[in-house]
Amino acid sequence: MSKALVVLSGGQDSTTCLYWALARFGRDGVTALSFDYGQRHRIELECAREVAAIAGVSHACLPIDTFAALGGNALTDRAVDVPHRAAGEGLPVTFVPGRNLIFLTFAAAYGYGRGLRHIVTGVAQTDYSGYPDCREETLAALQIAINRGMEAAFELHAPLMHLSKKQTVEMAVELGAMEALAHSHTCYEGCQPPCGECAACRLRAKGFAEAGVADPLIERFAHTA
Amino acid sequence: MSKALVVLSGGQDSTTCLYWALARFGRDGVTALSFDYGQRHRIELECAREVAAIAGVSHACLPIDTFAALGGNALTDRAVDVPHRAAGEGLPVTFVPGRNLIFLTFAAAYGYGRGLRHIVTGVAQTDYSGYPDCREETLAALQIAINRGMEAAFELHAPLMHLSKKQTVEMAVELGAMEALAHSHTCYEGCQPPCGECAACRLRAKGFAEAGVADPLIERFAHTA
Repeated sequence: MSKALVVLSGGQDSTTCLYWALARFGRDGVTALSFDYGQRHRIELECAREVAAIAGVSHACLPIDTFAALGGNALTDRAVDVPHRAAGEGLPVTFVPGRNLIFLTFAAAYGYGRGLRHIVTGVAQTDYSGYPDCREETLAALQIAINRGMEAAFELHAPLMHLSKKQTVEMAVELGAMEALAHSHTCYEGCQPPCGECAACRLRAKGFAEAGVADPLIERFAHTA
Repeated sequence: MSKALVVLSGGQDSTTCLYWALARFGRDGVTALSFDYGQRHRIELECAREVAAIAGVSHACLPIDTFAALGGNALTDRAVDVPHRAAGEGLPVTFVPGRNLIFLTFAAAYGYGRGLRHIVTGVAQTDYSGYPDCREETLAALQIAINRGMEAAFELHAPLMHLSKKQTVEMAVELGAMEALAHSHTCYEGCQPPCGECAACRLRAKGFAEAGVADPLIERFAHTA
């Protein structure tokens, strides 16, 4: 039976992808994998754990201490400020060179001995950030490299690749991911409740607004406030 | 000016490649990079440092704690025995899924912000081990994936790809790598002087014998004995 490994950051997109995988492979066919790579905000990993628990799938976490040692980017290096708006030109300061290449390769390495041959990632080409390692052509090349390098037949799935944030919200509603999304994480500032001001919060809010759906994460804090 | 980053394990092949890079890019154009990935034998990293010092190039070391967390292979997991002979079928127990994919991707990530666009690796297709991530077609696919994923123009070089061990020794002599090779490391058992019995020691000895050259590593210990 084919089984899937979902790379779960605890964010909106990977949470939605987890439910995409559940619908396709069933609860027993899905494992979630997070990476503890020195991200600024530990809350991401807590959210990933909560999301996996709500979805009822097993959840593993692999450490990667290499990105912090590489330095020089805003997601792992506290000396670099995260901008509130994406820069007009060039790659954003939040670009960690090779991050998704590494995540997906380690995911395949994790799945290799465990019979997990479907690797699911929440990356999207339509993402405002313009990360080149989130593009379809990058994933296509990486799938070839991984399969040649491991003598295996992995399939990399990126169900959100060509969806707008509005469409991602609609997919999440359809797949029943709302309860999990109430425990997901998006804010670049690491705030819970989310700051509402950073680029990530604004993008998320825009998607929910365009879909005409209330963000369950915002709702959760409205109820507890 | 083009600059190169040599992935240096401290072994015979990567040491020879370091000298290949010196001949091509000059001392100021070469940086060596090692990975501290939880290898059984810390002596490998000490050898890499010595080799880089003898070659007169700067040397960086990046940690990768992920392979040890993945578990289940003989190079990082002390619970798995290293066989003295390669198995007749299937991938050897020393196969760490994705290891070279990860090393080269992190090397590119390291080179990304430092203007190092030539990544040099000592992998060889003719190697007895049959690791699929050491093959030319794997490197070709990975180069595409890395360049798409980082919007860059890296070139992956594997100067030993089609050489026999004999030819690698001949290249090392030609490039003046003998002094450095006296401080390189090969033994799977982590012995210094080398055990002479493991598959890696035998392969190295065979190459030197066929080239009609005395192994400077063996010579060094003969002199100090």
